[in-house]
Formats: sequence, structure tokens, C-alpha cells
Amino acid sequence: MIIQIKPQLPETQRSRIVGRVKLLGYHSTPVRTQHGEYLICIGKAEIDIRQIGSLPGVADVHRVSDQFKLVSGKWKLGYSAVSLGEGVTIGGDEIALMAGPCSIESEEQVERIADHLQKHQIKIMRGGVFKPRSSPYAFRGLGLDGMKFFYEACRKRGIRIVTEVMQASQIEELYPYVDLFQVGARNTQNFNLLDALGKCAKPVLLKRGISGTIEELLYSAEYVFSAGNEAIVLCERGIRTFETAYRNTFDVNAIQVLKDKTHLPVIADPSHGVGIRDYVAGIALAAVAAGADGVIYEVHPSPEEALSDGQQTLNFQESAALINKIRHLKSVL
Amino acid sequence: MIIQIKPQLPETQRSRIVGRVKLLGYHSTPVRTQHGEYLICIGKAEIDIRQIGSLPGVADVHRVSDQFKLVSGKWKLGYSAVSLGEGVTIGGDEIALMAGPCSIESEEQVERIADHLQKHQIKIMRGGVFKPRSSPYAFRGLGLDGMKFFYEACRKRGIRIVTEVMQASQIEELYPYVDLFQVGARNTQNFNLLDALGKCAKPVLLKRGISGTIEELLYSAEYVFSAGNEAIVLCERGIRTFETAYRNTFDVNAIQVLKDKTHLPVIADPSHGVGIRDYVAGIALAAVAAGADGVIYEVHPSPEEALSDGQQTLNFQESAALINKIRHLKSVL
Amino acid sequence: MIIQIKPQLPETQRSRIVGRVKLLGYHSTPVRTQHGEYLICIGKAEIDIRQIGSLPGVADVHRVSDQFKLVSGKWKLGYSAVSLGEGVTIGGDEIALMAGPCSIESEEQVERIADHLQKHQIKIMRGGVFKPRSSPYAFRGLGLDGMKFFYEACRKRGIRIVTEVMQASQIEELYPYVDLFQVGARNTQNFNLLDALGKCAKPVLLKRGISGTIEELLYSAEYVFSAGNEAIVLCERGIRTFETAYRNTFDVNAIQVLKDKTHLPVIADPSHGVGIRDYVAGIALAAVAAGADGVIYEVHPSPEEALSDGQQTLNFQESAALINKIRHLKSVL
Amino acid sequence: MIIQIKPQLPETQRSRIVGRVKLLGYHSTPVRTQHGEYLICIGKAEIDIRQIGSLPGVADVHRVSDQFKLVSGKWKLGYSAVSLGEGVTIGGDEIALMAGPCSIESEEQVERIADHLQKHQIKIMRGGVFKPRSSPYAFRGLGLDGMKFFYEACRKRGIRIVTEVMQASQIEELYPYVDLFQVGARNTQNFNLLDALGKCAKPVLLKRGISGTIEELLYSAEYVFSAGNEAIVLCERGIRTFETAYRNTFDVNAIQVLKDKTHLPVIADPSHGVGIRDYVAGIALAAVAAGADGVIYEVHPSPEEALSDGQQTLNFQESAALINKIRHLKSVL
Repeated sequence: MIIQIKPQLPETQRSRIVGRVKLLGYHSTPVRTQHGEYLICIGKAEIDIRQIGSLPGVADVHRVSDQFKLVSGKWKLGYSAVSLGEGVTIGGDEIALMAGPCSIESEEQVERIADHLQKHQIKIMRGGVFKPRSSPYAFRGLGLDGMKFFYEACRKRGIRIVTEVMQASQIEELYPYVDLFQVGARNTQNFNLLDALGKCAKPVLLKRGISGTIEELLYSAEYVFSAGNEAIVLCERGIRTFETAYRNTFDVNAIQVLKDKTHLPVIADPSHGVGIRDYVAGIALAAVAAGADGVIYEVHPSPEEALSDGQQTLNFQESAALINKIRHLKSVL
Repeated sequence: MIIQIKPQLPETQRSRIVGRVKLLGYHSTPVRTQHGEYLICIGKAEIDIRQIGSLPGVADVHRVSDQFKLVSGKWKLGYSAVSLGEGVTIGGDEIALMAGPCSIESEEQVERIADHLQKHQIKIMRGGVFKPRSSPYAFRGLGLDGMKFFYEACRKRGIRIVTEVMQASQIEELYPYVDLFQVGARNTQNFNLLDALGKCAKPVLLKRGISGTIEELLYSAEYVFSAGNEAIVLCERGIRTFETAYRNTFDVNAIQVLKDKTHLPVIADPSHGVGIRDYVAGIALAAVAAGADGVIYEVHPSPEEALSDGQQTLNFQESAALINKIRHLKSVL
Repeated sequence: MIIQIKPQLPETQRSRIVGRVKLLGYHSTPVRTQHGEYLICIGKAEIDIRQIGSLPGVADVHRVSDQFKLVSGKWKLGYSAVSLGEGVTIGGDEIALMAGPCSIESEEQVERIADHLQKHQIKIMRGGVFKPRSSPYAFRGLGLDGMKFFYEACRKRGIRIVTEVMQASQIEELYPYVDLFQVGARNTQNFNLLDALGKCAKPVLLKRGISGTIEELLYSAEYVFSAGNEAIVLCERGIRTFETAYRNTFDVNAIQVLKDKTHLPVIADPSHGVGIRDYVAGIALAAVAAGADGVIYEVHPSPEEALSDGQQTLNFQESAALINKIRHLKSVL
Repeated sequence: MIIQIKPQLPETQRSRIVGRVKLLGYHSTPVRTQHGEYLICIGKAEIDIRQIGSLPGVADVHRVSDQFKLVSGKWKLGYSAVSLGEGVTIGGDEIALMAGPCSIESEEQVERIADHLQKHQIKIMRGGVFKPRSSPYAFRGLGLDGMKFFYEACRKRGIRIVTEVMQASQIEELYPYVDLFQVGARNTQNFNLLDALGKCAKPVLLKRGISGTIEELLYSAEYVFSAGNEAIVLCERGIRTFETAYRNTFDVNAIQVLKDKTHLPVIADPSHGVGIRDYVAGIALAAVAAGADGVIYEVHPSPEEALSDGQQTLNFQESAALINKIRHLKSVL
């Protein structure tokens, strides 16, 4: 059960609601976000929710049968959209496109890619400066130094930035430069990081775990929301299966399931979702046809020279073709 | 290496080619299909294929680095199309739609569904009379009796028939009624069945195994082809993964990989691919966007009363909507 | 619900039982095996089973909550043992060991391996003459010719034979030579083959599917049992997962689960279960420690020259060491 | 290539080695641990390692073909053992047993379990105070308060403590109380945490990821080692597969593979590995038979009342029986 609390409620009235809920056999968790205040009530009692709805200070009350609550589509009419500022939004009628290199490598690389995005009216650039790598001897990113010129290149072009944050202690240093904090597939269940991002005033892009279930992804989103941050974008990026003909199995079913179960925007990462350059465009189109609200993919001036993920990265020509195809498809669906 | 042999070649010339190939260190398998004659040569020697190409009786010769040969896209220009007769084709510019019930249940059921298909210009009807079921106590299909009225309903409307064959001994009895023999996901590696279908003069629809790799699917197609039957359609129908939010994980990547690796037509089964009615349409569209040559799905007058697979079966209204969406999408891609 | 029928029951009494069960809302399937006669009753009604137990002709009646019935451990006290004749049994106090080559290759090979088994008191020899192979161009076994000298080598040494049968039509030709029919991992859900083996008077070794669930394995065993054959041995042989460090993931949990859920004997195939020679012994011991009733593994005079599966096949020295280790472990558990 | 550097080497000599390696086309990473100093050299050049071995200051040099280096078994003779102090060791001839509750819940609970361990000479107690939970509304552990009485109960009985650390910032606060830092399955690729633990003077227990490959586990161990900490224990705890008959699939193959590929000690967690109380003992024995150096399992005075993981937790009687069985098995292997 989710209870929406009226704004600026006096503490005594709030306590009265909490007390009443407790009396009815529910354990309640208070949640205050940038958009409102909620009580999440967990319990097994069968109650008439009008008993709660009529209490002073209650704006609305919703029965939610899912185990996850605030991110469930069962209580919110319509879909949420997430604003990155400057009129850039994920969710809604327009398809949100995000592109950029796997790793930020140099000023020149960033400038060239930002030019490419600007030319094609892509409003969000991706790029990693803290890179989770399986091997400790692999390139781990340029860190804050890279972040700074990445920021400059985007700021002057009006492009918003999404980049991966690997632990709570990095949030503060990245904060001035980032418009959308990405939680990578290895950190989907890094609950301390999720809690910290929930207390942060910027939106979060939450990737599905490498073999994470859809339910786990929604629970992880619930962590962020219940810690205070409603601005969450979910991302399907392929799961680990027995198939070895490609890198990951893009789970197009998940797009449908997520759009059905949650009000949050859902985007697709076809680059990781299939992991082979020639197939990225096809998977991107499939995701859009299945209802994705956006697509995030990797692009690089010379993919074969990229410091990471080159085999799944598009060059500018392929990227331009993909942008046109996606926009065309979205316009006719 | 694939050697295409000229038609009506005298036996002496054929022997000379086989002998030459053996001398070069290759083991050869002769293959004669409805469309031509081939020698499949397996070996590790590095040779100049022009040595073979210049032999009398050789029409063409192709180096094929894949382990599967005849179904590989590396030797055949363009894509193959499979004809079911009466102008009905799978592969090519038009999207091939196939629909029908999981199980053939009654004359009335079949007539109503055939009417629905006819009304929407669907030219191929699916329906099982031999049903592979996990439990021996479940409904196992009406057998040949069902096949007969299924055939009558389709014949009078000019609709072609695809139905599942479970073992080699059923081919003969089903033969008069069937236009496309389906090999189900549990039989993808039933090699005796594949061999027998390879010797049969009707096309084969080969479903991917429940956890079959893409490579295994192509090898299974190679069984059919090398036994003499080139008319093969491949079908992605979802794979088994850890995710339990739906029945199978539709592998949209496989559509792209298969279209890249083979010249055979590739279709999608979104009904089994996701297994939940509300999501079937979205997955069908995704498959078409990813390049599928056709879609096969389950439809029933009252899905909730179907004897099998009701939870993933569309009703007529949903089916009509899906047909329109697929045709619209295909027309704009 | 399983109703055990008294032997030699007059048809009128049998009909009365069937009628009564129907009246109570159950659908019943009659089963007659080499050991007895049963009625399998499927239905949702809540009944007092004493109503059935007191009917004339009913020997016993059991409520079985599992979906599979006859193979369930819920109705049979203790574990079943399967006799291969000549005093050779699978199930019971002694560990059953079975070994032999992947493929029968030559008389000399068979004689040498049979000698090795005899020397170490191994009573069951495995070896394939019909080989399911992913590629149509791979070695597919010597067929009946191989079967004959395989039979001779074993007969004169008092060794029993287990070999794979790939389709129903092979049962008859193999019948004179085989003591235990193996259903391979690609045929676990070949229901026509299971039905045919259920009507056959020799025991069946049923391997788990390549990605078959434990429940599916039990359902497949139910096919054999309900068609009339109680002599079934189950075999865990590794499942397909994302891990690529070895061939299959041996599912040691399945040994525990199967021993808990069914009364049938359960054996382990560590050769396929891990697929790498150096690890076979360790996995065999693990399976025995987890409660397996037997072990089947691959042995060859020169594994590196084997026509199939050489990488997971033991030589005689390794085999001898493993036999000693297994027997020692079993004796102290 | 791993170069072992002599102790107390003057900086000039170290530079000369680094320079020489660079000249040969290798990139080197210096590593200094509690036990020694190494240069990890990554490169593709083919060199005669004696060129390096003869340099002043080089104690030894090893070619390591694995991608992971310091944790590879290819350079170290024999197996490493990890000391927890007070004579308690993991790795070596004796089997290491660790037991305790999933979550630390109360002083009374901890005292009773510690008594049980002491009575059976178990020297290491597990118990979580920071609990990673899928849902933000589930019990997340008692935190440092719980840690303090957990510590007291163990200290006075001479029992060593293993507990999970979820992020780098918790290391310092947990440090005084912990003898072995556990990295949980959701954090196996939390590289910042691994780096931080590599700089810490206490041993690390590294669990395999929920769907982590064996190679990824070894890379994660390489993170810890290369950051300066050699005292690492690996733990197989089950992987995520399609099977739903139990919680996770205990990968007994991994025990064999890890013992082959690395010199680090390898233990098994049968509680998470199968997730069902009745099967825990069987899986524990299987792991020991496969070569595990230790077993960690969950025990609670009343598992059915446990705040987490009750369904896979043993009671004292089951725990006592398991301890005896494991010790007996180890003694006869």
C-alpha cells in the first residue's frame, strides 16, 4: 500500500497516519522525494483502504499487489518522464537518443563525437571516466580529468551528460559535471550506491544486472526511489545466457514487461545487448518496435582504435544511419 | 568447401572430381537435392580452389569457413525463398504470416479460425495434431482424424498448412495433408527425423531448440539440406534462461545473427518466444524490425478455453490488430 | 492419486473402480507394467481416499501431490532397484559402475576395454553404435555391425550392455543385444521414443535433457512408466549454463533433489557432466558423496585417438584409479 | 610474466628492471603485498625469460599464460594457506569449517550459536551485520551495534569472525572486529571495494558472483592481490541457471577448476549453493569430495524464526551431524 501525503503536513497529523497504519498491522516506511511524500506500508492484513483515504492529511492511497511499490505501474496513472534539464527529457512521445564512446579517451575524441551528436541533434552524450573492468591491468578510465573536458565539450553544445558512477564516494566529485548518473550492470545490486543516489538531486540511469531478473531491477529502482529520488530511467542491456554467438542476449521481452509493470521510462542499450557492431542497428530498431523510450549506444571516430568495447561500437557513418532509421521507425509506429 | 556439380554429369566425370578432391586431402560427401548436386568437402589442406573450379563437370566451387556448409550464407548470393505451392512463399520482400491454434481441437474451431485467416489474407495456417507434452497425462492431439478436417478447411480456402511432425514414421501419413513440416523445439536435434525430412519432397520449418545454440540450429538445417531437401525455414522461438517473468526469452539477436550467417529464411514465433498474450504483439513487431522474414503465432476463438497454450494465444480481435501492425511496419521499414 | 489394482482382477470389478473414480471427478489412466497394474487419477476434487481404498479389487491407494505420479517417491516405500539380469543391479547398497567408450570403433577397441572392465569387476559396459552428432558430417557410429561384436565381447565376459537408442524403430533391431536402453540428452523429450520404450521389456536409462529441468526428467520417466515399463534409471549428465570453463555444469544438486523426489535409481555421468578428463574423477566422487547410485563414464585405450569425446575420456590407468576411489568412498560413507 | 623482486631492493636496481622489461615490449605493474614484491608484466613479445632472471635484484621470474597472473597456479609451487590468526588457517590438510547465522539478530542468538560452534570445535563464525537485500523494505542487518556483541561472543571463545563488507567505507569501522572480510556474490565485481580490501591487512573471502564466470572470480581475486593483499579465499556458492527446483545451482565443477587454476584456497557454501535445508549436507559432502578446502554454512537455533535465509539454515542437530560427516569424509579421502 502506498499512501500519498499532502504537502507541508504538520508533524502531528503525519504521526496520526503512521499510528493508524501500525494499528491496522502494517509496517510503514516514510519516503520524501523531490516530488512528494509517501508512506510505504508493508503488511498482510486485509483492510478497506478507504479507512486510510479518509484520514486528514492523506492525499491518496493505493493498493499495490507487487512486492515493489513506488516503481510499480499499479498506482500511477500514465508514465513518468525524467528531465535532465534544458528541455531534455527521457520518456514521453519522443524517442530519447544517447550516444558516445565507451571510454572518454582524449579531448580530441570527445570533441569529434560531440560534433557528430550535435550535427544529428542528439542531446545526451554517454562516456565513461571510471570504468569497471574485469582485469585490474586493463584501462580503467581517465577519472576526473577526463570528466572535465567531457563536460566542457558538452556544455558549449547544449548536450547533457550521462556517465557511470561506481561507488557512493564518487557522487560528490562527479556531481557538478553529470546530468544523469549511470549505475552499471555490475552495480545494479550495489545497495549502498543506490541508497546514496536516492539522496542525490540528479536523475539515475539504472542498468539491469548482468544476470539480474526483471524483478531485481525493479527492486533496485525501488531502493533509489524510496531513498528520495523519483527520477529513474531503467535500461535493458542484455543478459548472460548459454549462447556464445554474441556477447549478451538482448532481452526484448524485458522491454514489454517493464513497460507493463512500471511507470518509469525504459531504454535499450543495443551495443552491450548484442556486442557485435553489425547487429547493433537491428537490435536498436527491435527495441524501439517493442516500445523502448530511448536508445543508448556506443559511437567512436575509429572504433577499431577504441580503448574499450571497439567491437560493438559504431563509426559516425553507421551512427548517422541508425539515428535516421530509429527516428523514421518511431515516427511511423 | 562446396563444389556445385553440373546437371546430368556422367558418372565417370563425377568420380574424377571425387578422386581429385580426395587426393588433395579432403573427405567429400555427395548431396543431391531438388535443386542441384553438390560435393561437401571437409578437410584442412590449404588449396587453390581454382584447381577444382577448372575440372570438367564443376559448375562452381566455394570456400566456406563455417563448420556448416550448405546452409551457410558464404557461398550463395542473396537469400533463398521457400515455396509452399499455390504462390505462397516464405522469404523475399513480403512478410510471411502464419497463424492458428496450438492444437487442432474440433471442426468448428478450425473453421472459425480459417475464416479469420481468410478474412485477413493470411495464407498459412498452423495447428498441431501430434502434440509433444511434458506430461503423459496431458492432451496429446487429435492425430490423423484432426488432420483430415484441418486439411479440408484449409484446402477450400486456398490456405497452406504447417503442422508438427514428431517422428520419421509420421511423415508418410501426414504427407498428403501438409505443406510445411514443422520440427518442434524438442526435436531440433532428433537427427533421424531430420534425415527423414531431408529425403522428403516438402519444405521443413525448423524451430530452434529449447536451449539450442544458433550453431546447433544451423547444423540441424545442414542435416536436412545434406540429406536432399533445400526447402528449409528457420524459426526463433525463445530460449530458456534464468528469467521467470515470462515463459521463454525471445532471442531477437538470433534473428540478426541468422540473417547474417545463412541464406535460409528466418521467422519468429512470438507466442512461444514470450508466452504471455499481452506481450506477443510487441515481440512480433520487434522481430520484424530486426529483420524476420515472417511471423508464426497462436490464435483461437476463445483462448481461455484452448486445450493448450491458452495463456499465450491471441483472440481474433488481437490477431486482427497484430496483422495490421505487422503489415504497416513491414511497409515502412 | 495412484490406485494399485489387485492382480488378475475381473474386468467388471475394474470397471466399477474406474466408474467410481469418474463419479468423484477424476480422470483415470490405466497402466499395466511388468510389476503390476495401476490407475492414475488426475483431478482437483478433495476426496477421502478411504472411499477408494475400501473398494473390492483395490490393493492400495495413494495421494500424490506431485504432478508426476508413478515415479514420485511419495507413494512407494524405499527405493526401486533395476535389474539388468545375471545378478547385475542398479540401485541398492552397492554402487553401480558403468564404463566404456563414447563410440564403438573396432573389435580390438571393444575387446581391450572389456578386458579392462573385467579385470576391475565392472559389470556394465557402455558404448554407442548410433551416435547423435551435431554435424551431419561427423562420425555417426558403426550401427548394427558394431553392435554385434560389442555384444560378443560382453557376452563372453558376463558384462551387461548399455547403448543409446535414437528412435523407436531402432528398438527392435537393438533388442537382442542390449540390456539397458539409453535415451540420450537430446531425446529426453522425444515422447514417441519414450512411449515405445515403455512398451519394451528391457530397462531404460534416461538422461536429463541438455537444459532439461528436473521436473521434465521426471515427467519423461513418467512417460516410460505409464506406458508399461517400471525399470527406469535416471542420469544427471550436466546442464547448459553460461559458464565456458568446461563443457557442461554437472548439477550435483539434482542428485539430491532426485533422490528426494523419486524412488527410481539415480546415476551420474561425470564425463559429460564436466567434459574435461582431469576433472572427471573429482566430479564422480562428488556425485557419490551426494548420494548417486551409480557412475557412468567414458574410457578408451588411447583417448587422444578416440573418434568422439576424447577430451573427456579416461585412459585405463585413470579409470583404474577412479574405480578404486569410488569403491573406497562408497565403503566409508 | 611475473617477476619476483628481492627484498629491500635499492630503487635504482628496481628501475633498471622496469626499464629492461619496457625495452622488451612489456607493460609492467608493480605490486607490493604483505609477503613480497612483484612486477606484473603484460605484453605479447616472445622473450627468453632467462634474460630477466639474470638481472640483479630479480629473485625469480615466471611465464604465466593465464590472463590473471598473481592468483594463477602456474607460478607458485603448492597451494597457499590463509591464516586468520590464533592458529586458525584456511587451506592445507585440515578442512576449514565456518558456520553461523545469515544475519546477526541478537546477543542471545549469537551466544547460543557460538556455544554450539565451540562445542564442536568450529573455529570460525559467520554472521552478517550489513545485509544486502533485494528489497529496500527487508531487514538490512544490525550494523555496528550487532558487530560489537558478535565480536565479544567470539573473542571470549577464541573463535575467529567472517562477516560481509558491502562498500569500501565500511572497512575501517569493521576492521577492529573482523578476521576475514567477506565480499558477497553481488559485489564480486565491485572493483572499488576489491581495491580497498587489497590495501587492507586482513584476509578476504571472495564469493563467486551470482552469475559470475570462474574467470571473472579469478580476475576479481587478482584485483585484491595486485592491490597488495595475498590473503584471499575463494568461495563457490552456486550460480543462477534455468532450474527452479532449488535456489541456485551449486557448481561442483568450479571446485575442481579452481583447485587446478589457482593456488588460493577454495571453499564451498552449500547453504546458498542449493538453498534448501534438506539438501545442504549432501552438497557439503560433494564439495569436500571434489576437493574443497573448507565449508561455510548457515546455522541458527530456530531456523524457522530466522530473519533471513531460514529455509536454507540448519538447526543445531543437523549442524552437528554435518560436522561429523564432513570430518569423517575428509579423514578417509
